[in-house]
Amino acid sequence: MSDKKKMVEAITPIDQDFAQWYTDICLKAELVDYSTVKGCVILRPYGYAIWENITRILDKMLKNTGHENVAMPMFIPESLLQKEKDHVEGFAPEVAWVTHGGEEELEDRLCVRPTSETLFCDHFAHILHSWRDLPLKYNQWCSVVRWEKSTRPFLRSREFWWQEGHTLHETAEEAKAETELMLNVYADLCEKHLMIPVVKGKKTDKEKFAGAEATYTIEAMMHDGKALQSGTSHYFGDGFAHAFDIQFAGRDNTLQHPFQTSWGVSTRLVGAIIMTHGDDEGLILPPAIAPYQVVIVPIASHKPSVMEKAEELAARLRKFCRVKLDASDNSPGWKFAQWEMKGVPLRLEIGPKDIENNQCVLVRRDNREKVFVNLDELETALPAQLDVVAQAIFQKALQNRENRTFSASTMDEVIRLASEKNGYIKTMWCGDLACEEKMKEEAGLSSRCMPFEQETISDVCPCCGKPAKTMVYWGKAY
Amino acid sequence: MSDKKKMVEAITPIDQDFAQWYTDICLKAELVDYSTVKGCVILRPYGYAIWENITRILDKMLKNTGHENVAMPMFIPESLLQKEKDHVEGFAPEVAWVTHGGEEELEDRLCVRPTSETLFCDHFAHILHSWRDLPLKYNQWCSVVRWEKSTRPFLRSREFWWQEGHTLHETAEEAKAETELMLNVYADLCEKHLMIPVVKGKKTDKEKFAGAEATYTIEAMMHDGKALQSGTSHYFGDGFAHAFDIQFAGRDNTLQHPFQTSWGVSTRLVGAIIMTHGDDEGLILPPAIAPYQVVIVPIASHKPSVMEKAEELAARLRKFCRVKLDASDNSPGWKFAQWEMKGVPLRLEIGPKDIENNQCVLVRRDNREKVFVNLDELETALPAQLDVVAQAIFQKALQNRENRTFSASTMDEVIRLASEKNGYIKTMWCGDLACEEKMKEEAGLSSRCMPFEQETISDVCPCCGKPAKTMVYWGKAY
Repeated sequence: MSDKKKMVEAITPIDQDFAQWYTDICLKAELVDYSTVKGCVILRPYGYAIWENITRILDKMLKNTGHENVAMPMFIPESLLQKEKDHVEGFAPEVAWVTHGGEEELEDRLCVRPTSETLFCDHFAHILHSWRDLPLKYNQWCSVVRWEKSTRPFLRSREFWWQEGHTLHETAEEAKAETELMLNVYADLCEKHLMIPVVKGKKTDKEKFAGAEATYTIEAMMHDGKALQSGTSHYFGDGFAHAFDIQFAGRDNTLQHPFQTSWGVSTRLVGAIIMTHGDDEGLILPPAIAPYQVVIVPIASHKPSVMEKAEELAARLRKFCRVKLDASDNSPGWKFAQWEMKGVPLRLEIGPKDIENNQCVLVRRDNREKVFVNLDELETALPAQLDVVAQAIFQKALQNRENRTFSASTMDEVIRLASEKNGYIKTMWCGDLACEEKMKEEAGLSSRCMPFEQETISDVCPCCGKPAKTMVYWGKAY
Repeated sequence: MSDKKKMVEAITPIDQDFAQWYTDICLKAELVDYSTVKGCVILRPYGYAIWENITRILDKMLKNTGHENVAMPMFIPESLLQKEKDHVEGFAPEVAWVTHGGEEELEDRLCVRPTSETLFCDHFAHILHSWRDLPLKYNQWCSVVRWEKSTRPFLRSREFWWQEGHTLHETAEEAKAETELMLNVYADLCEKHLMIPVVKGKKTDKEKFAGAEATYTIEAMMHDGKALQSGTSHYFGDGFAHAFDIQFAGRDNTLQHPFQTSWGVSTRLVGAIIMTHGDDEGLILPPAIAPYQVVIVPIASHKPSVMEKAEELAARLRKFCRVKLDASDNSPGWKFAQWEMKGVPLRLEIGPKDIENNQCVLVRRDNREKVFVNLDELETALPAQLDVVAQAIFQKALQNRENRTFSASTMDEVIRLASEKNGYIKTMWCGDLACEEKMKEEAGLSSRCMPFEQETISDVCPCCGKPAKTMVYWGKAY
């Protein structure tokens, strides 16, 4: 077990230095490599496979809710970006500019898309004619670029991978319903597949997307109590439609402007998975998106009968789950540590004694609990055990959030809690920007959202004492 | 049928103006839209769905041959691009340059990747340590940018979507075998799924990839007799490994340079499908990649029993194929024309009389042949008929290629054939660049490839009279 110990020692303990632990996992589990392109990472096969599994699940959800995939250019002419005032102000300072194509200097320089509202609007103006064309429900899988100053793998990098949905609707009501529908799709993705509990709510005006009338969000809490904005859904009203001259002939034959939404999730979700579920041994992956759901480790694999049985099992399991047979000549202990680092939800151990007893050992990644399973029952026992792991890590994450969610009704309480605890602080709020800014200055907290599930903590805003309009989740965020 | 006629008249006849016919189809079948970003297109839902189906088939083939997906940054620092001399000479003149990030000017400007050999090499140098790490067989799905002067949808645009494989091997033999393996994968993709016959061969030195030791190609012939390079596979030897200092500890513990390949196919394949199979009515799609394999058109759809039956059939068919029920209030004739334009391989017509007889009509897109099918037999009859369409369009394309392939043994013959016919001209060749250039100047032909299946047409090069080394396919190309 000495090599196993060496491998485990190589990660910083999670509660000693969470940031370093995170970086260690990204590299040791071979999710990413740093690239020579400053601020950009390389998604290595294991990291990419996680993202690929997320995209496969979400793409199906998007198609089931009537969305079609398209591909837009990666460039936005500067003149096009400038058409919507708030939008350009929000994004222009952080884009990469292409000024030369081949040997020629461009007249209208191009930015690499930081998000594609402007491109979609330009296209919509071309193709939309009649109310019969509506709704238009499009999605795009691509990477986007934002020139961030400080970067971290998955959480914030100059290039990241995502999907961005863009839809047009005949009425404001339909567009608002779409915004809500997609937020629920994202919440389902997180809670039912990634096993990450989220709080659904609305962003304050300060935190909303540049150019949106309203931004809705799902907020997840990481192991260390910090919040991670994990998906957003924006309602634009008809503001972009006016700016880009998107019109259609309505049912009454008058020209009308459509109502618009956009929404996105990104490779940030991989960061959320790491920071929600991981532990001192490494990654813990939700079964739905794990590149391998089960790793088979043969014990005493030099015995031909053991390898033969392991291969037979791998072939059987491959029919209903993603399985890796580790047939390398490393020791079982080394293999245990390696696949724990990589977060494989279940380990299947099979040795000579097990074969004699027509059984194997299933070991849960999340708590190392072992169960003996009759080999004839694997087709039912293994999926059931995967589900046990999934539910357990969800409950653990939920428990962490509950333990780290606090209420406060005075600024003193807020400041004390913010300095002593990491987590959400719930307070009432008057709705004024001044109070939101004061929460940042005095307690170091940003508003995470105004949750859909409201509570009444007190009657007044703890900042100014004016009547409260809403309850807000505050926190420190990635 | 008047609206049907109007729709058909809107496309230029294929044998009147092939280039215009092509553009008409791209727009009328709603595959693309032009964007305001010069030289870039938008892939609309129907066009994107075709590409998505191609990627799904090919991605599976790549995984089955042991390749793993990764994602690299979209930028290449100029200093990195310059490391391999031939490569930078080939690509630097046609890249887009990012000179500013946010408000700051970059010290080392970045190009948007035109291809990613340099990024992969840089990464390989980081992660390769021992012969035990080999082979490394990576693939990336992404878009790349080349600053083309004149562009056409799918065939040549400033941004296009593709996959690029990059592999490292311990020995030259293994790398060469990989190059051949991937060329065969591409040929299978084209011939068994896209139903496009291809010629496999090696490119001349003049036509090979910048930085490669050898480039292998699959060449397809379009309806008009012009060639389309449809996929390439490159053998690099250890040239890039030396330029990028990629080394590993070999079996004998000495430091060695690995041998490398790369290979790619792109959205160009969608152009190949259009130009190989299409006709005066529009697109004809191979069933394997058609977004809809069958369109159900109810006849006398105002009768409730008809729509009910059509919906019941759609639900049944959805279990084993991609089906569209056209329930719009357009006339059957309009629907026929629309779905012919979009190239759906089979149309299923169902009307009151058919329901009485427990049958439906299946109409082939490629030749409008009708068959009556008993409704109880759809589960077998429909897939069989899809296969009939697939084989028929492959045979038609093969016939076109055979009709348009000529042999010549003198320059006079070459020049006469090149002026009278569009197609391949096969000749012997001495191997000299001068003769290759003369073929271009005097007959307007470029070398397509030195095919793996060689023939002996004469003993000498028709250009210079020197002894022939190989047979070459010449042609005009897209």
